[in-house]
Amino acid sequence: MVDLRSDTVTKPTTEMRRAAFEAEVGDDVYNEDPTVRELEEVAAEILGKESAMFVPSGTQGNQIAVLTHCVSGQEIILEEQSHIYYYEGAAISAFAGVQPRTIKGDRGVMNPNIIEAAIREDDIHVPETGLICIENTHNRAGGAVVPLENMKQIHSIARKYNLPIHLDGARLFNAAVATGIDVKEFAAYTDTVQICLSKGLGAPVGSIIAGSEQFNKKARKWRKRLGGGLRQAGIIAAPGLVALTTMVNRLEEDHRHAKILANGLSQISGLRIENNVETNIILVNTEKSGLTSHQFLELLKQAGILAVSFGPYTVRFTTHYDVTATQIKEVIDKVGKLVS
Amino acid sequence: MVDLRSDTVTKPTTEMRRAAFEAEVGDDVYNEDPTVRELEEVAAEILGKESAMFVPSGTQGNQIAVLTHCVSGQEIILEEQSHIYYYEGAAISAFAGVQPRTIKGDRGVMNPNIIEAAIREDDIHVPETGLICIENTHNRAGGAVVPLENMKQIHSIARKYNLPIHLDGARLFNAAVATGIDVKEFAAYTDTVQICLSKGLGAPVGSIIAGSEQFNKKARKWRKRLGGGLRQAGIIAAPGLVALTTMVNRLEEDHRHAKILANGLSQISGLRIENNVETNIILVNTEKSGLTSHQFLELLKQAGILAVSFGPYTVRFTTHYDVTATQIKEVIDKVGKLVS
Amino acid sequence: MVDLRSDTVTKPTTEMRRAAFEAEVGDDVYNEDPTVRELEEVAAEILGKESAMFVPSGTQGNQIAVLTHCVSGQEIILEEQSHIYYYEGAAISAFAGVQPRTIKGDRGVMNPNIIEAAIREDDIHVPETGLICIENTHNRAGGAVVPLENMKQIHSIARKYNLPIHLDGARLFNAAVATGIDVKEFAAYTDTVQICLSKGLGAPVGSIIAGSEQFNKKARKWRKRLGGGLRQAGIIAAPGLVALTTMVNRLEEDHRHAKILANGLSQISGLRIENNVETNIILVNTEKSGLTSHQFLELLKQAGILAVSFGPYTVRFTTHYDVTATQIKEVIDKVGKLVS
Amino acid sequence: MVDLRSDTVTKPTTEMRRAAFEAEVGDDVYNEDPTVRELEEVAAEILGKESAMFVPSGTQGNQIAVLTHCVSGQEIILEEQSHIYYYEGAAISAFAGVQPRTIKGDRGVMNPNIIEAAIREDDIHVPETGLICIENTHNRAGGAVVPLENMKQIHSIARKYNLPIHLDGARLFNAAVATGIDVKEFAAYTDTVQICLSKGLGAPVGSIIAGSEQFNKKARKWRKRLGGGLRQAGIIAAPGLVALTTMVNRLEEDHRHAKILANGLSQISGLRIENNVETNIILVNTEKSGLTSHQFLELLKQAGILAVSFGPYTVRFTTHYDVTATQIKEVIDKVGKLVS
Repeated sequence: MVDLRSDTVTKPTTEMRRAAFEAEVGDDVYNEDPTVRELEEVAAEILGKESAMFVPSGTQGNQIAVLTHCVSGQEIILEEQSHIYYYEGAAISAFAGVQPRTIKGDRGVMNPNIIEAAIREDDIHVPETGLICIENTHNRAGGAVVPLENMKQIHSIARKYNLPIHLDGARLFNAAVATGIDVKEFAAYTDTVQICLSKGLGAPVGSIIAGSEQFNKKARKWRKRLGGGLRQAGIIAAPGLVALTTMVNRLEEDHRHAKILANGLSQISGLRIENNVETNIILVNTEKSGLTSHQFLELLKQAGILAVSFGPYTVRFTTHYDVTATQIKEVIDKVGKLVS
Repeated sequence: MVDLRSDTVTKPTTEMRRAAFEAEVGDDVYNEDPTVRELEEVAAEILGKESAMFVPSGTQGNQIAVLTHCVSGQEIILEEQSHIYYYEGAAISAFAGVQPRTIKGDRGVMNPNIIEAAIREDDIHVPETGLICIENTHNRAGGAVVPLENMKQIHSIARKYNLPIHLDGARLFNAAVATGIDVKEFAAYTDTVQICLSKGLGAPVGSIIAGSEQFNKKARKWRKRLGGGLRQAGIIAAPGLVALTTMVNRLEEDHRHAKILANGLSQISGLRIENNVETNIILVNTEKSGLTSHQFLELLKQAGILAVSFGPYTVRFTTHYDVTATQIKEVIDKVGKLVS
Repeated sequence: MVDLRSDTVTKPTTEMRRAAFEAEVGDDVYNEDPTVRELEEVAAEILGKESAMFVPSGTQGNQIAVLTHCVSGQEIILEEQSHIYYYEGAAISAFAGVQPRTIKGDRGVMNPNIIEAAIREDDIHVPETGLICIENTHNRAGGAVVPLENMKQIHSIARKYNLPIHLDGARLFNAAVATGIDVKEFAAYTDTVQICLSKGLGAPVGSIIAGSEQFNKKARKWRKRLGGGLRQAGIIAAPGLVALTTMVNRLEEDHRHAKILANGLSQISGLRIENNVETNIILVNTEKSGLTSHQFLELLKQAGILAVSFGPYTVRFTTHYDVTATQIKEVIDKVGKLVS
Repeated sequence: MVDLRSDTVTKPTTEMRRAAFEAEVGDDVYNEDPTVRELEEVAAEILGKESAMFVPSGTQGNQIAVLTHCVSGQEIILEEQSHIYYYEGAAISAFAGVQPRTIKGDRGVMNPNIIEAAIREDDIHVPETGLICIENTHNRAGGAVVPLENMKQIHSIARKYNLPIHLDGARLFNAAVATGIDVKEFAAYTDTVQICLSKGLGAPVGSIIAGSEQFNKKARKWRKRLGGGLRQAGIIAAPGLVALTTMVNRLEEDHRHAKILANGLSQISGLRIENNVETNIILVNTEKSGLTSHQFLELLKQAGILAVSFGPYTVRFTTHYDVTATQIKEVIDKVGKLVS
């Protein structure tokens, strides 16, 4: 099987497994796991934030950000297909009691003027705006990079209205590698940033949520409530540290593979590439082939290829560490035969 | 002052005051207030529902509907400028823990196909869709009537996916009077409907939420939690009953006044009517006059006219029982002078 | 029927009805109802607080206090049979997301040392304590007065830990009349206080929540979310004003009736008075009569007397404005015959 | 340092580390991690339940149980010092919106009659009872075993009122080893049970929540919302499997050590053992020594011994895999010298 469903499917490398085996550990609920602490320090440094916290998943990192920045009855501004809104089971409303104010982005990028217009006035009928969330790269927009300039503009509006910004940077390293801009630069225009270790970087489990010391202290209690306070978490922080310190540059390879794959698929009659492939995600439209996304996926599966549906006629392919250049070529060949 | 801010500003008639004075009352928390019970029975009959419940406000009626139909972690579908989403302080998320899935309507009317596409699949990442809400007439769309045919189509989709429909009918009688279609007809394509007694109908306080017996039983406990369980509520139910039984037909007058006002204002250079005036609301665009909505409102106020801002260059005027045809003409004259 | 179920069943006096009939009104959501404003000013003055807000019920007043003082994830300290905990449908947890830390009181009075021991330390595992609630008089403790001295001690602890105090004073005027201490004195040892107009004071509908200006501003938005923002609320504020300004002293009569009733019932073989009758509530234990509370209530009902169950063998009688001295004597006679 | 703070501080064994190194993994969000699936199957089998789910912590397992069994506005019955109530940051109220109804237990054991009396009647003022929680062994009661007979009685009441039972069995294996009763026996009188792999069993990270298939399906979505959906979780499930299948019987050693330690400490003047030491927890009262718990802990620390405060004069010692018989003796000797 060539598994192009997600970059989350990557399996830990031998080096990561060895790091788990050898990890120096302690009880992280007591803040005594040296490997977790090292990972948190390294991550804070890389992201240019005062402090960082290890969490078991990106969803938990995002939820902690919303719970810590906001209070119940507020409204948060985010893109209408962003992960926090689209894929986290309405947890922002169920747990934090906040209402999403969604904005239709252009390839995942929100217009700063529209954001400003969406900030609520002081009126008895309306919720107070409490947070702006950005996703970079933006998953449902096809791994689109949110330009640094756009983040600067949003940051400037947020400062004007005294609003915090949270960056869902589950794939922020893909944005950094694609643009040559350091993650620290992107993070500089946010109050908090979440990065995933278990997507393109290949760690088995875990994410980081980084921000100020004050944020971190309050966030730790929300992590505990959510059940993210772990014990000898060094066992998973150790491979996370390998991922964070050795796997970033190789994302360039995933991006190259994605471009090759997109180029190959675009030449198959009946298929159309929906997105401008900047990073490791390709959105393929199947409508002209006469196949729905589910029918197309079924054919792929029989040919040993896995991908996921992103709409009635849209299929997402994601490149990652466990997919080779050779496999990419095979996929193009096989899909070509299947569709014709 | 000619107060065109809202139809909520109407003062109770002498008949309503007398009804309050004479009301037979009891303790409604024990379900023993005969006037409240009569109002509830009359309302249920008018709306064609098994049962109805008196609540102190339309907001509480809407919130009770969401709390009773849904559970925390669900998603509800509604129009992106609907009252429940726009003007209820994010209470649906704060209290019911549900996430709004907003749809951009055309004059407040949601495309049934877009609703169907927004209903979530069974997937671990996403919330379950729990409710569809419709607002008729639609306030921010300028008192627009949602056509019965549209409601039928949405109802048909809701049945297919086994979803309840709640109708925010705060101004449903305006829709009925404008179209000649009985409120019962509109209500037939919903599971629950909320109507306001204190808008165009002129009662001092109160709304009705109607639905099945089963809904009603569960809803009463949510009303109690929200602090809507009142004691000798007959004092306000009595004027509400007057409103419901004697004030409906006269909405036609408000609609006629609104058309006259819209026509007059549309001929003033610098002003533009944004909406197709079907009921008692007029949205006036001030952009070409060089005035922002707030500047325009300030000028009006000095001339003894009140209205409200609906956007940077949009002002809402609402006709109602306490505004006469003569006043409408005066307003047109005064505004004409002010703008020129 | 002699209705001793609750002091909430009192019907409005003619003076109250006339006040409703004549009330000067406006739209209170715009803060323009002169009668509501007058009631709020008078109530603030009487309670010695900066400001006050009219709410449709005591439950809503209490919920607003919790929502305004606290944030989700906190713990609040209250007596284990207090109304906020026992009779408000878990709304403090459902809406405010706070966990009650209940303390067993002695006749409704919490030991200040136990309160202090219940305040949480700063620890990642535990919620932050956010509020202390007191109920005076205490309903389930049989209308017991919480002594001013106890409130002073709790206030002193609250200041030490920087915690706000909310007083559920639904029957605070009963405490004032019973002790000769001004309600202002009791309120002085709290941050916010809720009083009911519709219990012993006899108004048809409504309560007051009083506190600082800052509290009031924030509280108004929570009231709106809960559906307590009313329109021409002067119609009910007017009788409330009559209740607040003319009905307080007569509570002495209810207390006298309660003592007579308790004395009479205590001499009936098989019945025992559980509480020290200080105000207008009597708790009668029926165990020795061989009757459960429900069986006893059924017999009473057949004899034209209404009361309520407060436990398997406990029945509550409440005296109020609509019960005369003659009726009290009749009740004693009838109950004597029924039980023997 | 001899670390007796908690059995959570145990470090993974070499076998566990090797299991992590070699674990066969997949993406568990897609339900494709074979090691996680094996662990879940083994755990379900051991606990006698239809299915089981791996979660990152006991707190998350408990929260998922409450979220899955209950809806907002309900009340849940639990012991007043139980972990779910005392140590989970009010998350049951913040996330599930339920109100705890706490019962004072006798050594952690709730009287079934008191439970039955606490179940709410059907009344508009009160929340519906939604769940009963039991903790076995009970941590704050000193590792006390809740007798199987008590669980049977509670189960019988729960069936009568159609209420689910959740067992917080973070230390259920300690109860099983202490009594010789299989965990399956205890679990048989519950609907769901949570067990911790990272306490006495020594795994680095993780717990199990087991119940019916139907519960499991619904619970998986709550796990995702809480951020407990992990990727290649086999890395931590593998040591968890070693813990579950090889570390249970050795708990007997911890219990023996605890008895020796308790016996030794009880002979030191100024110290008193508060609990009947049945499992691996000892509660030492320091009051007669003139030391507060914090002063006592400080002295211990200087002597290389760690424990935790459980109250102003109460210190908890917990035995576990990383504490030897020799160390136990050293602790007794050192404490004797310190206190005298």
